[in-house]
Amino acid sequence: MKNNNFCVIMAGGTGTRFWPLSTRKEPKQFLDILGVGKSLLQQTFERCKKISPVENIFVVTNEKYKDITAEQIPELEDNQILLEPEKKNTAPCIAYSIYKIENLDPNANIAVLPSDHLITKEDDFIKVIQEGFKFIAKKDALLTLGITPHRPETGYGYIQIGDQINSSNIYKVKTFTEKPDQELAQKFYESGEYYWNSGIFIWNLQSIKNAFKEHLPDIDSLFSKGMGVYNTKKEPEFISKVYFETKSISIDYGLMEKSQNVYVYTSDFGWADLGTWGSLHEFLDKDKNGNSVSGKNVMLYEVEDSIVKFPDKKIAVIKGLEGYIVVDSKDKLLIYKKNDEQEIKEIVENIQKNKGDKYV
Amino acid sequence: MKNNNFCVIMAGGTGTRFWPLSTRKEPKQFLDILGVGKSLLQQTFERCKKISPVENIFVVTNEKYKDITAEQIPELEDNQILLEPEKKNTAPCIAYSIYKIENLDPNANIAVLPSDHLITKEDDFIKVIQEGFKFIAKKDALLTLGITPHRPETGYGYIQIGDQINSSNIYKVKTFTEKPDQELAQKFYESGEYYWNSGIFIWNLQSIKNAFKEHLPDIDSLFSKGMGVYNTKKEPEFISKVYFETKSISIDYGLMEKSQNVYVYTSDFGWADLGTWGSLHEFLDKDKNGNSVSGKNVMLYEVEDSIVKFPDKKIAVIKGLEGYIVVDSKDKLLIYKKNDEQEIKEIVENIQKNKGDKYV
Repeated sequence: MKNNNFCVIMAGGTGTRFWPLSTRKEPKQFLDILGVGKSLLQQTFERCKKISPVENIFVVTNEKYKDITAEQIPELEDNQILLEPEKKNTAPCIAYSIYKIENLDPNANIAVLPSDHLITKEDDFIKVIQEGFKFIAKKDALLTLGITPHRPETGYGYIQIGDQINSSNIYKVKTFTEKPDQELAQKFYESGEYYWNSGIFIWNLQSIKNAFKEHLPDIDSLFSKGMGVYNTKKEPEFISKVYFETKSISIDYGLMEKSQNVYVYTSDFGWADLGTWGSLHEFLDKDKNGNSVSGKNVMLYEVEDSIVKFPDKKIAVIKGLEGYIVVDSKDKLLIYKKNDEQEIKEIVENIQKNKGDKYV
Repeated sequence: MKNNNFCVIMAGGTGTRFWPLSTRKEPKQFLDILGVGKSLLQQTFERCKKISPVENIFVVTNEKYKDITAEQIPELEDNQILLEPEKKNTAPCIAYSIYKIENLDPNANIAVLPSDHLITKEDDFIKVIQEGFKFIAKKDALLTLGITPHRPETGYGYIQIGDQINSSNIYKVKTFTEKPDQELAQKFYESGEYYWNSGIFIWNLQSIKNAFKEHLPDIDSLFSKGMGVYNTKKEPEFISKVYFETKSISIDYGLMEKSQNVYVYTSDFGWADLGTWGSLHEFLDKDKNGNSVSGKNVMLYEVEDSIVKFPDKKIAVIKGLEGYIVVDSKDKLLIYKKNDEQEIKEIVENIQKNKGDKYV
C-alpha cells in the first residue's frame, strides 16, 4: 500500500544568532550544536524516518547548502533536496515543496518541520504527528503544533486556542501572536489559553493548495505553472525564474493568520527552538557551576552560568565571568553577556555590512 | 682612545606572566609588546648604543633564543651573544659576562640591564648611566639604580638609602627588601627612604670580580678557569660544563645583599618593569573607556579598563567586561581579571606541568 505521509524539512536558515559557530557558510542546522554526534538537520531527518518512508522526505535549503546537505544525509536522492536560489521566507519555500509533491502524490499528507529545533521526547512527538496526519486526512484543515509553555518566554510566538475538537488535544485557533513583551508573555503564560507556536505544520496537500489559492494567489499562480516540470531536469531553471519573481512572505503572515480552517494540536514533547545561545544552554550538560563547556583544553576559574565553546586544540584560561557566552571558532571570537544575546543578530548583520561575508 | 664602557643585556627570561603572548618559544623580550615597531630587546639595544660602542654590547640569553636574538639585532657578532645552556638565575649569567669581558678589557666599566624594561625618559637614563660609570671608574663600588616610587607598588623590590655621597644622587645602600605586602609598601612609599629596585647594575670589572671572589667563591672558581677559552671556539663547551656544575642563585641574594660597598643611584627616568599585563596597561595608549586595544577587528561594547589584544585577522565581539585582560594568540586565549594577574604565572607553570611545552 502506498504511504501518503510526507515530510518537508526547512533547512535554509542562516542562523546568525549562533555566531560565531554558525556562519553563512555553515549555519546551525548543519552543526552538532548539542554535542551529540549529529547535526540538528541529521537529527530532524532521523525523526522524519519514523514518520515517513525515506523517499517521502524532502529537504528545502539554499543552493549553497546543496553539498553539505547531501553529505550529511547520504540517503537522500538529489531530487529530494529542493534548492532555493534565494531567500524568500517560508511561503515560497512551502509552495515549492507542496507543488512538487503534488506531482508525485496528489493525496499526500505533509508535515513541514524546521531543521533546527530540539525535541527531547521523540516518541511523544511521533505520536502527535501520526495523530495529526489522521486528523488532516479526514478534514480540510491546516494543523499547527502548539507547545504547552513552561515559562513566560518572550522569544516565541503564541497561539490562542478556541473551541476544542471532540475532547481531543486539537483546538480551533483563535489568534496568532508574534513574540510578546514581558508583561504580555506573563499574561499568556498564566491564562492557560496560549501555546508556543512551534512552526511545525501538518496538512493535506489539497487543503494547503486551496489556502494558497485563496490567500496567496500570486504565489499559487507562479508555482502551479510548473506541474509539467517538477521532478524533471527542467525544474531548477523553472524554480530560478519563479524565485526571482515571487514575493518574500512568511507562511504565518501570508496564510495561517488569514485562513479560517486553522487548528492547533496542543502537546508537550520537550520542544525548543534553539534560536540563541541562551536557549541552547538550557539543554546542554552543565558542570557544578552551571557552565556548559566544550573543548578539551578549557580551564575555568570562578566562571559560572556560562556557555564556553572552544576547539579542542585551543587552550583557554578564563577567570571571573558569570552569565557569559564565550565561543571561539577559528578566526572569530565572541565574549558576550548572555542576557544581551538578542543583540548578537544585529551585530553580525553589521559585521557583514562593514566587512563583507568573510567573518559571518 | 679605547672605550671601556660595556653593556650586558640579560635576555634569558621566559616571561610566563605575559602568557599567552609571551611563550617559551618567544618570550616577551622578543615581542613588540608596546606596539612601537620594535621588541623590548631591540629597544634596550638601541639605548645601549648610546652608552657603549656596538662591539662593547653583549646579550646573554638562553641557547634556544640564539637565532631570534641574531635576527632581531643583526649588528651583533656571534661572539657578542652569550648562550646559556640552562637557566641558573642571574649570578652565573653575570659571572659569565664579566669573565668573558675581562678577557677583552680588564678595565671595563660594565652596565648590566634587563632586556624587558620600559624606560620612557631615555635621555635621563643615559645621563644616569654615564654618571654612574664615572662613579664606579674611580671607586670600588657596586652601583645599582633606584627609582623614585610613584605608588606603593607591591610588585617591586625596594632599596633603603643610607648616607648620601657628596651631595649627589648616590647613596650607600642600607637594606634591600623583596616585594613587600600592601601595608609595608605603603610605609616604604611614605617614608621617602625607599626606592624601587630596578635590577640595573653598574660596576667596574675588578669590583664585581672581587665581590664574586668574596661572596660567591664557588662561582668565581668555576668561571675564572676559563680565562684561556673565553672568546675562542672552545667557549661553548666550557660554558656547557660550567653551567651544569654551577649553583643557581640570584645576584641580589648571592652578592648585592651581602656586599659592603653597595651604592644606589636614585633617579626617575620613567622606568617600569613590564612584569605583568597590568603594568603594561599603564603605558599603552587607551581609548576613552580606558581600554588598550590591539587588533584591527576588535569590537567592544561596554568594555572598560581592559587590555584587549587580538591578531589583526581575528574578529572579536566582546560585551560587558571591566578590568580584564583578553589576549588571543594563535591556539591560546586568556580572559582574566586584571586584579588577579599575579596568578597567571602559576597557571602557566601548571599548564606546562600537565600538558607539556606545547601551549606555553
